[in-house]
Amino acid sequence: MGLKRKLTALEKVNDVFKNDLLQVQELMVKTLDSDLSIINNISNHIINSGGKRLRSILTLSSASLCGYKGDLHIELAVAIEFFHTATLLHDDVVDNSSIRRGKATASSVWGNKESILVGDYLLGKSFDLIGKSGMIDVYKIISKAAVVISEGEFLQLQNVSKIIEDENIYYNIITAKTAILFASACQIGGEIATSSESVKQNLYLYGLNLGMAFQIVDDILDYTSNKNVIGKNIGEDFLDKKTTLPLIIAYKDSNAEERKFWERTICKGDQKEGDFLKAVDIINKYNAIERSVEKAKVFIDKARQSLAKFEDSDIKSLLNEILDFAIERIF
Amino acid sequence: MGLKRKLTALEKVNDVFKNDLLQVQELMVKTLDSDLSIINNISNHIINSGGKRLRSILTLSSASLCGYKGDLHIELAVAIEFFHTATLLHDDVVDNSSIRRGKATASSVWGNKESILVGDYLLGKSFDLIGKSGMIDVYKIISKAAVVISEGEFLQLQNVSKIIEDENIYYNIITAKTAILFASACQIGGEIATSSESVKQNLYLYGLNLGMAFQIVDDILDYTSNKNVIGKNIGEDFLDKKTTLPLIIAYKDSNAEERKFWERTICKGDQKEGDFLKAVDIINKYNAIERSVEKAKVFIDKARQSLAKFEDSDIKSLLNEILDFAIERIF
Repeated sequence: MGLKRKLTALEKVNDVFKNDLLQVQELMVKTLDSDLSIINNISNHIINSGGKRLRSILTLSSASLCGYKGDLHIELAVAIEFFHTATLLHDDVVDNSSIRRGKATASSVWGNKESILVGDYLLGKSFDLIGKSGMIDVYKIISKAAVVISEGEFLQLQNVSKIIEDENIYYNIITAKTAILFASACQIGGEIATSSESVKQNLYLYGLNLGMAFQIVDDILDYTSNKNVIGKNIGEDFLDKKTTLPLIIAYKDSNAEERKFWERTICKGDQKEGDFLKAVDIINKYNAIERSVEKAKVFIDKARQSLAKFEDSDIKSLLNEILDFAIERIF
Repeated sequence: MGLKRKLTALEKVNDVFKNDLLQVQELMVKTLDSDLSIINNISNHIINSGGKRLRSILTLSSASLCGYKGDLHIELAVAIEFFHTATLLHDDVVDNSSIRRGKATASSVWGNKESILVGDYLLGKSFDLIGKSGMIDVYKIISKAAVVISEGEFLQLQNVSKIIEDENIYYNIITAKTAILFASACQIGGEIATSSESVKQNLYLYGLNLGMAFQIVDDILDYTSNKNVIGKNIGEDFLDKKTTLPLIIAYKDSNAEERKFWERTICKGDQKEGDFLKAVDIINKYNAIERSVEKAKVFIDKARQSLAKFEDSDIKSLLNEILDFAIERIF
């Protein structure tokens, strides 16, 4: 049942914005067409790598929720997608990732240099598209997001090989990693459609809290899923010695022996075969998955409260369904 | 004599804009102050690494040339300096450089990950400062420059280990590497001071052509200078198998044996001890240094023509002296 519902929510949103998403795709292709074959190759890889275009969808649907009738939403949906892709490219280099969305990363196919440069190129193209829109407030939103994102990357880097005990540090990291751009994507949709600051703020909060829940669920799936579902290797956070919410919760209740296990595997990075399964066992022992889901639901509830301030509409229902989807993809 | 004159030009410009440059320095420090120690460490390294702040100076002096009396020039001078530093940080990772401006690069001290992330952080801060200025046209200028710069990086990457025979490819590379940001720095100074498109265009062309000459001279110095003068190792382009103007010129006249030498050292990358000195010998045999200087002077003349369209003033004289300085630092 969970699976059927999940497909329906994604299918619906893709169906409602089918034409817009086609235009987004076309503009992506057109914007990245370059005389330099290496840019074309990497761009095609990125465009066809099967991302869900969630951030584009958030911009499109936020604009639609506010009754937007213009055509800036396409350019800005592409801009936010490029911006997001740029951060992924740099992330993959920083994290030495070889798989993303179930496909080989650009950095593993073309090399780190190329990924850094295409990342910079996409950042430039993203800002260039925003420039064409003439919306300085959109620039400001994205610039602020850029600062938050890179500060968060550092915070994450500083906390690798450490057991994070303070949940707030984890929330700061996932704000930067996911939530701020979800928030920005929604806010931008409002920015082009309305001058009401409170509407824009509600959109921002919808995106922010959805993003928090979304990343918590991603982090849960890294302990519970398989490669086919989330398109990356399971157990990557554990392997990379990154503390996420299930570990934070499990660590609090862990006994002395279990704490020694976490310290060996996370702090010292001394991991043996079977350690990941043992980590999963401890996490399950303390119901840390279910307890993480509960925390994600708190964020979803906050997002729902922000959405409740809008008048009822088909788009509003859809945005509510996306909130359900964010949680249900676990099951 | 050359040395005395050279110092005088730089000293003069630093003296005239002493107060502004102090404010630039203060705003840099203030803007980069972060709770995260790693950002502070790398930022301090960057702020104190002794760059000439040429791009800041170009923004300040272009604004001054147009009689600007406001205070946006400080913020924008910092923005352009941050943007430039971000590209350097990413460059150092892409090029595996260990020395820049005579000091260890951030990537060699803190690592590649950190350099990528601080680069992204500085890009964000740069755009954030522009956002505060409220000048969407400045955003557009910098966004365009960002695209040109990363395209040029690819063009350079594609031409590593190749002997570039078409001078225009080289000019495209150095446009991206240096000239476009010089041009943008000048144009931004005009943008805040005047609404005249022709004035802004003249400032742009002054900066563009100065930048072209500046990079040609840098590339000449890589064959003729020593580490103390330009703050990087001599012979780096040869070692990195990058074709620059002296090589392009020398290659055209090289005999069969000499061409074999270039193909072995540049295309195959098979370099032995003494090869760099041999490269210098061939370059000198065909007067390729002097002939490169002549090409640089053509760009300087173009810059001077753009500057000639402004009314005489102390700042105009200074900008003329910077043109002399660009060439004279060779001797």
